[in-house]
Amino acid sequence: MKLSGERFKVIYSLTGNAEEARKKAKDICYEQTVEFPEDLIPSGIIKEEIVGKIEDLIKIEENRFKATISYAIEITGFEITQILNIIFGNISIKPGIKVENIQFSDLLLKHFKGPRFGRSGIRKLLDVPNRPILCTALKPMGLSPQQLADFAYQFAKGGIDIIKDDHGIANQEFCPLEKRIKSCCEAVEKANRETGYNCLYMPNIGGPLEKIRDKIMMAKETGVGGLLLCPGLIGFDICRQLTENDDILLPVLAHPALLGSFVTSRENGISHGIIFGQLMRLIGADAIIYPNYGGRFSFTPEECKSIVEMTQSPMAHFSPIFPAPAGGMTMNRIPEMLDFYGNEVIFLIGGDLHRHGKNLIKNSKKFKKLVESL
Amino acid sequence: MKLSGERFKVIYSLTGNAEEARKKAKDICYEQTVEFPEDLIPSGIIKEEIVGKIEDLIKIEENRFKATISYAIEITGFEITQILNIIFGNISIKPGIKVENIQFSDLLLKHFKGPRFGRSGIRKLLDVPNRPILCTALKPMGLSPQQLADFAYQFAKGGIDIIKDDHGIANQEFCPLEKRIKSCCEAVEKANRETGYNCLYMPNIGGPLEKIRDKIMMAKETGVGGLLLCPGLIGFDICRQLTENDDILLPVLAHPALLGSFVTSRENGISHGIIFGQLMRLIGADAIIYPNYGGRFSFTPEECKSIVEMTQSPMAHFSPIFPAPAGGMTMNRIPEMLDFYGNEVIFLIGGDLHRHGKNLIKNSKKFKKLVESL
Repeated sequence: MKLSGERFKVIYSLTGNAEEARKKAKDICYEQTVEFPEDLIPSGIIKEEIVGKIEDLIKIEENRFKATISYAIEITGFEITQILNIIFGNISIKPGIKVENIQFSDLLLKHFKGPRFGRSGIRKLLDVPNRPILCTALKPMGLSPQQLADFAYQFAKGGIDIIKDDHGIANQEFCPLEKRIKSCCEAVEKANRETGYNCLYMPNIGGPLEKIRDKIMMAKETGVGGLLLCPGLIGFDICRQLTENDDILLPVLAHPALLGSFVTSRENGISHGIIFGQLMRLIGADAIIYPNYGGRFSFTPEECKSIVEMTQSPMAHFSPIFPAPAGGMTMNRIPEMLDFYGNEVIFLIGGDLHRHGKNLIKNSKKFKKLVESL
Repeated sequence: MKLSGERFKVIYSLTGNAEEARKKAKDICYEQTVEFPEDLIPSGIIKEEIVGKIEDLIKIEENRFKATISYAIEITGFEITQILNIIFGNISIKPGIKVENIQFSDLLLKHFKGPRFGRSGIRKLLDVPNRPILCTALKPMGLSPQQLADFAYQFAKGGIDIIKDDHGIANQEFCPLEKRIKSCCEAVEKANRETGYNCLYMPNIGGPLEKIRDKIMMAKETGVGGLLLCPGLIGFDICRQLTENDDILLPVLAHPALLGSFVTSRENGISHGIIFGQLMRLIGADAIIYPNYGGRFSFTPEECKSIVEMTQSPMAHFSPIFPAPAGGMTMNRIPEMLDFYGNEVIFLIGGDLHRHGKNLIKNSKKFKKLVESL
């Protein structure tokens, strides 16, 4: 066995005093690789290169340290599942360890295609070169395909750029996927013909996974403009598989469902920027939805900024992707959000678009006008 | 739209005082279903049946409540991805909400096959009717297929029942999956011919997921006795898809990699029993590996007991599955563990089997003798 010597780095925060932190850092090096007692590993390449290496360990505050640990890129097998495993597999079960940052190696990243559209690709499809992108969701669950399609028509007619299914709208008997896709595609195409806009409809596609590729090909043939995928529900590598597939080649909006437990603790888990920024780019999402500060959820402005940062930080050949802050956003917050996010953002307003009267065309126009006027 | 009226129940613990808890419970009912402002939903079936219902809300301690919320089974679309989404999708991002228990409905569960072998099926394959099952892992990462196969031969020869790959042994260039499977199958078959035992070799199979079915079929044709799958890495519905596939039909040992963040907090996440017990049965695992109390990890005896309980509690047509406590277990703990777990358990000892001299046949025999003598 001979390895290239190329390594990637994961930065963990660790709780404890200096001695405990050093012990934890060393434990990570073994737990995430060989999972074998140190004293039983003979000297040689396994001990010297396969086991993780502490590159740096510094105190960041009382009882809190930052450890930089490097891993040989070859131990990932260049698979997403094994990359996740090396980064945080077993140690997700140990308290007081959080993944704060990752410095991938270009030689590792070259095995993945990354976002196929990214910010610029989505702007091109929409023909919206500069301003924030306007997005909404079809809901509530329980409506029929025709009722959702009626909403979709009005949203598209009013100038919304991206219309996605709510992520809880799956393939329920009262709203079958195929029928919904057909109705919503027709509705949005009709509106586009009338407005001249390029509104994109993005259905939510989930399990059962035996059929996910077929369902997506059906959706593509029917004319969808992209896909809503939930990596926490369907799996990170499934997303990678779908985004890398050249037959599919549709923009992907990723949704954070079920991923919250990675970020709710300060001391354990994966940082906001990594899970909602860098890892989403790794699996080829073109935009990531997350709960904005000050909405129904509890992210702080700093956490939102860290996500934005990671959607655009240099990462080999990976394009920047759009942050899509959501979760109870309202029109009256647009000026503040524009201030906070600038133009490189997808504004996702769901329920609030229904709050300004029954005419959704009018409400959507109001949303668009508001964004364009600022 | 007409629903059956059948509902399943999720029991959440909520932090806060009585008013905050009631508010949180109500929020869950909407967030996990319609994601729509309550006052904008017209009365009718959506409000009455699609929205979650608070069935019960009781104080369990100061600033902590238990809410039972029911959901119409139809909103799951009878998909694993959407079941996970309903149970904990969006609210995973909200602090102070933890899934403590689930009472599935038989009408919901009948859509899934569940464990194909379970405890009795594994016992039958091994011809081990009563005693605890003996298991070990092939490691450390960095060894060649031939070196791992040599270990496998010794373990099987010494009487280990199940030999699994370490979950970090993927498809790295220095240990390619196909070659490893071939070598290890040959080694275990040779030992079985010599001993008359039915030792099962279970390789770890992960991404890329385009090829997972083909890899598993190759493994089956080569003669593996089962599979090691990591639902946290490959996705829960992928596991369900693989276990339900009649062409595959191999026992599955599930590994907890990356799932730790769901259980590390007392106030947010999913309880040990649900994520490592009930959900593993839902996706068809026949055994679940988890870190035993008192090892390298931090589960308590009570948490381990709750996992055991959920591997065997009544659950429609779903067989009981094996708990496989692991994570730094040593031979000298066997008497205590036998006391704690009884016979319905898989004892997984990894590194420690290497600690008693280089002769792994002898060490394995010692392990077996110890278990049989008690």
